[in-house]
Amino acid sequence: MSNIIVQKYGGSSVANPKRIAQVARRIIGYRRKGYDLVVVVSALGDTTDDLLKLAYKITSSPSERELDMLISTGEQISVALLAMAIHKLGDEAISFTGAQVGIITDSAHTQARIIKINTSRIRKELQQKKIVIVAGFQGVDLSKEITTLGRGGSDLTAVALAQALKAKSCEIYTDVEGVYTADPRIVLQARKLEKLSYDEMLELASLGTQVLQARCVLLAKRFNIPIMVRSSFTNKGGTMISQEVKAMEKVVVSAVTLNKNEAKITMRDVPDKPGIAAKIFKTIADEGISVDMIVQNISRTGFTDLSFTVTKENLARKVKIARKVGQQIGAGDVIADQDIARVSIVGVGMKSHSGIAANMFESLAENRINIEMISTSEISISCVIRKKFAERAVQAIHKKFKL
Amino acid sequence: MSNIIVQKYGGSSVANPKRIAQVARRIIGYRRKGYDLVVVVSALGDTTDDLLKLAYKITSSPSERELDMLISTGEQISVALLAMAIHKLGDEAISFTGAQVGIITDSAHTQARIIKINTSRIRKELQQKKIVIVAGFQGVDLSKEITTLGRGGSDLTAVALAQALKAKSCEIYTDVEGVYTADPRIVLQARKLEKLSYDEMLELASLGTQVLQARCVLLAKRFNIPIMVRSSFTNKGGTMISQEVKAMEKVVVSAVTLNKNEAKITMRDVPDKPGIAAKIFKTIADEGISVDMIVQNISRTGFTDLSFTVTKENLARKVKIARKVGQQIGAGDVIADQDIARVSIVGVGMKSHSGIAANMFESLAENRINIEMISTSEISISCVIRKKFAERAVQAIHKKFKL
Repeated sequence: MSNIIVQKYGGSSVANPKRIAQVARRIIGYRRKGYDLVVVVSALGDTTDDLLKLAYKITSSPSERELDMLISTGEQISVALLAMAIHKLGDEAISFTGAQVGIITDSAHTQARIIKINTSRIRKELQQKKIVIVAGFQGVDLSKEITTLGRGGSDLTAVALAQALKAKSCEIYTDVEGVYTADPRIVLQARKLEKLSYDEMLELASLGTQVLQARCVLLAKRFNIPIMVRSSFTNKGGTMISQEVKAMEKVVVSAVTLNKNEAKITMRDVPDKPGIAAKIFKTIADEGISVDMIVQNISRTGFTDLSFTVTKENLARKVKIARKVGQQIGAGDVIADQDIARVSIVGVGMKSHSGIAANMFESLAENRINIEMISTSEISISCVIRKKFAERAVQAIHKKFKL
Repeated sequence: MSNIIVQKYGGSSVANPKRIAQVARRIIGYRRKGYDLVVVVSALGDTTDDLLKLAYKITSSPSERELDMLISTGEQISVALLAMAIHKLGDEAISFTGAQVGIITDSAHTQARIIKINTSRIRKELQQKKIVIVAGFQGVDLSKEITTLGRGGSDLTAVALAQALKAKSCEIYTDVEGVYTADPRIVLQARKLEKLSYDEMLELASLGTQVLQARCVLLAKRFNIPIMVRSSFTNKGGTMISQEVKAMEKVVVSAVTLNKNEAKITMRDVPDKPGIAAKIFKTIADEGISVDMIVQNISRTGFTDLSFTVTKENLARKVKIARKVGQQIGAGDVIADQDIARVSIVGVGMKSHSGIAANMFESLAENRINIEMISTSEISISCVIRKKFAERAVQAIHKKFKL
């Protein structure tokens, strides 16, 4: 095991010069304890959004290559400023872009995947006792084109660096103290989880918990890299995400989550015959649209109603595509509904215990909340309900499971 | 001669999305005429200053390496946005950082010199009929460290690219229509010069004309690259700067310039003996201070008064150093005077015509403006006067020489 700690600081942790100085002090604190530090930084505050706004003022359909050229500057600014802040406190630090530090990706602009990391430059600087600061979210393909890794890309950079450097640990600093049993803004009694398995975190991420992106957790899981999620504003312990930490047979509901960013698309009167669902979802997938839950209602007289959820982004386009497929297969109306919310519970081993689902449905029924769609996975149960009941549902479920 | 035109657009020409779109239209206009275009862009409006302010909020003495990392993002933003604007109008374009396009410099951060330019990537994209957009002001050293070229660096990038690509012409677009016989804000009758020699432009640049930096003109002169300076806001012709264009013997005063950014330092009662001036100016040069005009008054009883001009930046430090040398050599008081201005006339062949100088002095005398220092070069004559008379002096000289 090396002596290297990889730390990642999100945009809110470095939003202004004062916060950058705070982060510099925290980093130096670790340095003084004798660790070698590799620090990944996101763009300052809203920089990325501001750059995107600028691009969309120029054109409604910017080229992805040029978008990467543009938004990768955000992290380059952060790393330079953080290095300066560390210098000011008297320690040695050096900043790098993704390209300089050898983060090689494929060529899928705006959503590139890391292929490999050449760690020689980082190791050289660590040997010279420098704190190494790396621009998150970005890399370079084999033709030296600048790429970005997509949403949550800086977390991915941190985990990938931790793997490549065989780091002792990987710490993700953010503006919350860790992962909670529910959103503390909705449930006052929400409790911070000290430990969580990769699978639980994955489920939470896919169900709308913003703390970590699923891609980053998947990578950590594949290489078994423990991730500590904690706040850059306090010194409290955070949430450790690692391999399964609970007893095999003990069923535990870890958290309840809420997602209000999805819409439901319903296709009416779909001919109920083999191959139709495949045709619909193949066409939708070919258009690059991710579908989340899918529910098919009971068939009557050879037709069925099919509902699925998608993110609200470009909803009009998604509806248009569904309508087009609908016409091709002789289905009826296509209706979009944005006033939905999804509440979910997550916990290892819940699949084999039907009592868990019943408890969840019961708590919703007790609050007169109608369930419109249900979906279950190995470690989660999700219900789609009216959006206006979302917070009440989360509170009820949190109480029911005594989280 | 190739079919390549290098164009450079300054920060004010691309200050906002609307202006970027205007620049894109101008570029495409040239493309339609059949030229291959390589476009160099500066950072948007005040971006570089804003980034520097951010750095100085973090530390009063930022590392030059990290400053380059920081401020090079400004041009990277510009090139991406300009490429998008061209795409929007339906033409093909691709943007590059200095590093990507192979602008190799030495390692003198914040004031690097271009060593060579590898043009293969640019040529490849031009062959594919793309408009190539290159970030100005920046390069990369042999260790892949990002460097910047110092003030006026984007002009330098343009001229260096024109040379490396054997371009047909090099056009510098700015917010003025060209080089004038005097600052049009001071002299209403000021006239745009259609042609100017490299040497005249060099002299004008060193005397305070902001249109082009001396380094860029020197490079153009060395490789005999004609530069057209013109406005990005109009379609009028600009000023062509090339090898000497005037008849050998005809004396022409081309322009009158004004510089109010200098201060005069006077060392009183300097011992009048050999080696003293050398001692003084060697010490000052060793401290990295550039001295401009030097005037030594008539010696009396073994002592002399020595005056020289320096830029007002860090004036206190410069005075301190002069005072220290003064003590070492047994001189008297050291006095700094910030209320001076320098007016100069520039023109080929004036040195051999003493009538020119006399005319200049006469026009000042007619306006009761006292001359405090005089300095002459091969193609210029400068007078230091009280700052409050600066504009009046420029107007008088402009009239005298019927510019």
